[in-house]
Amino acid sequence: MEAYLDFSATTPVCQQAADAILEQCRRFGNPSSLHQKGLEAEITLQECRAAVAKRIGCAPEEVVFTSGGTEGNNLAIFGAAAANRRKGNRIVTTAVEHASVLEPCKELERQGFDVVFLKPGRDGCVPPEAFLQAVDSTTILVSVMACNNETGALQPVEAAAKAIKCAGAPALLHCDGVQSFCKLPFYPLENGVDLFTVSSHKIYGPKGAGALMVRKGVRIIPRCFGGPQEKGLRPGTENMPGIAGFAAAAKAMPGETEQLSKIESLRAHLLWLLENLPGVEINAASGSPYITNISIPGVPAEVMLHFLEERGVFVSTGSACKKGAASHVLSAMGLPKARVDGALRVSLGYTSAKSDVEALTAGLKEGLSVLCRKRR
Amino acid sequence: MEAYLDFSATTPVCQQAADAILEQCRRFGNPSSLHQKGLEAEITLQECRAAVAKRIGCAPEEVVFTSGGTEGNNLAIFGAAAANRRKGNRIVTTAVEHASVLEPCKELERQGFDVVFLKPGRDGCVPPEAFLQAVDSTTILVSVMACNNETGALQPVEAAAKAIKCAGAPALLHCDGVQSFCKLPFYPLENGVDLFTVSSHKIYGPKGAGALMVRKGVRIIPRCFGGPQEKGLRPGTENMPGIAGFAAAAKAMPGETEQLSKIESLRAHLLWLLENLPGVEINAASGSPYITNISIPGVPAEVMLHFLEERGVFVSTGSACKKGAASHVLSAMGLPKARVDGALRVSLGYTSAKSDVEALTAGLKEGLSVLCRKRR
Repeated sequence: MEAYLDFSATTPVCQQAADAILEQCRRFGNPSSLHQKGLEAEITLQECRAAVAKRIGCAPEEVVFTSGGTEGNNLAIFGAAAANRRKGNRIVTTAVEHASVLEPCKELERQGFDVVFLKPGRDGCVPPEAFLQAVDSTTILVSVMACNNETGALQPVEAAAKAIKCAGAPALLHCDGVQSFCKLPFYPLENGVDLFTVSSHKIYGPKGAGALMVRKGVRIIPRCFGGPQEKGLRPGTENMPGIAGFAAAAKAMPGETEQLSKIESLRAHLLWLLENLPGVEINAASGSPYITNISIPGVPAEVMLHFLEERGVFVSTGSACKKGAASHVLSAMGLPKARVDGALRVSLGYTSAKSDVEALTAGLKEGLSVLCRKRR
Repeated sequence: MEAYLDFSATTPVCQQAADAILEQCRRFGNPSSLHQKGLEAEITLQECRAAVAKRIGCAPEEVVFTSGGTEGNNLAIFGAAAANRRKGNRIVTTAVEHASVLEPCKELERQGFDVVFLKPGRDGCVPPEAFLQAVDSTTILVSVMACNNETGALQPVEAAAKAIKCAGAPALLHCDGVQSFCKLPFYPLENGVDLFTVSSHKIYGPKGAGALMVRKGVRIIPRCFGGPQEKGLRPGTENMPGIAGFAAAAKAMPGETEQLSKIESLRAHLLWLLENLPGVEINAASGSPYITNISIPGVPAEVMLHFLEERGVFVSTGSACKKGAASHVLSAMGLPKARVDGALRVSLGYTSAKSDVEALTAGLKEGLSVLCRKRR
């Protein structure tokens, strides 16, 4: 029996998404073609756009389809910086963003922008007042994630919006919503967000699809040039199978609140089981209930990860995109090295069951006894 | 009965590709995950890379997966210009490239690069000597397509390579291979190409996948920043369903020479039928036999396109990505406006049959009589 507890890395593809993908392999029109096959594809594309928009809580015309979260974050950050370049030089973000936000920001720093990376507190959250202090009238972009992918920490996005208002800054507010979309009741337009990144393969859709919400009236400069697709912001023949699968998955996901009540009780059960495992420390468990970050100091995370997978339990050592590198998120939170090196991310999905978290804690218990003994 | 003759716009997805896509929906590991599911995905990814490399005629490590042709062309052009920026300021390309090459080149022109757009002759081909004249010792990039998407004209890629050598230029040679890949026996490494763009949905694979060949030792600067995927040149979780479908399609395509002999006789049949249709003029039919560009002067292309589709015959008015805009390719060839406005692209695939081209010419014949009468 398998206990997959790595839903924040990627999810299985739901049946509805798989069906939609296959349908788009059979009907294969290019939405840009002038004939009937093109028109059919164009109609499907608009239906998909409406479905994704509905889950984001925005208008269909505010949705730009991308190849996934990394492209969405890059388009938002470089696109906003290029559009606002003459209005100021400061960019404010946090030290705990995903690599696809941090690295573009570092690239802009190399290009001469003044980039501020706000530090989180011990709970993984950046204090709201930090935004008020950092955002000034020369700030052209603020980028802050809704939910951290390693710790589940919920960032004060509305404080970032307020800071922009208070400073009278020309800044656009970008929010990486990859870990909140369809999972938490966070709606970007209600929180003053201009640019919102979402991804398909975190919500039981296929890899290779995602979207960037671009609030009506907001102007960004594209990164790619060519055809008129996606209003010129993302040219190239649309990934119809991927987009259709993404939209079907977004439609199929239960409501955020419905999922939350299930996930919250599952996480409470997990925390209760972990309490009875001396040697396991909780690094973060106060934000999104989908993500629990733990450490077994003295046991390197990778060793425990492989011990667990031999028992059919799948977790991660942090962001999949960092492939085992030490976590910049936990380091920024000020955790000691032993805790960072021993950190495991346990991430739930709405299909997770009690038996999954019980398989995890049973595996951890066995691991603690076997692996710690070995190390003595 | 349907006669689909728009294979250069997009193709149906073959069964092998559809099966591979579904398989990657079932197995859903993230190649960056450290556990078994990640490892399985990583192995699949390497198998796909080898399959695509084999068809390009390069080493697996020279293949960078992208979201398609437009992204590949953008990555090659901006990436080469950024990497070579200090070595010179000239970029040489042609006036008949696809929009995803032309538009990035125009953007670089706006940024201060000296971009030369070489004009084709009446046959749609840029004369080889034009490259020798245009490429100088300050040229940092030459971009020329292998086969034109509207006319099938084969460009003298090897002359571009020679011009770079003769001038002692620090230029990288980029080639848009979207219309030649798996269809014509054109192998980039044998022709001095450093960067070669290919796409999945032109070879019976899914939309949303493609690759850029980056010759060993060639350095380009990425456009997207984030994870270490695709050697950092194209970060983001890999589009496993798309990549697997792409690789399966590349494997399933018959050999280039085998297809060519079939397509050549089909095209000979088409040309023979067209000869007997007074009022139809051939704009281009000397390059790739997959593409035949014709005009019915006096009948706007869109009118004839819709007349034909009512009879189940699907062609295009030019590049799908231009969605009906006047062809910059035919204009550059010096064709009169009436010919440009009346131009239709007929594009064959290896699944095309005699009955398809016969349905087309029957439709054209009827259209000539009905539509021309109306206009009198």
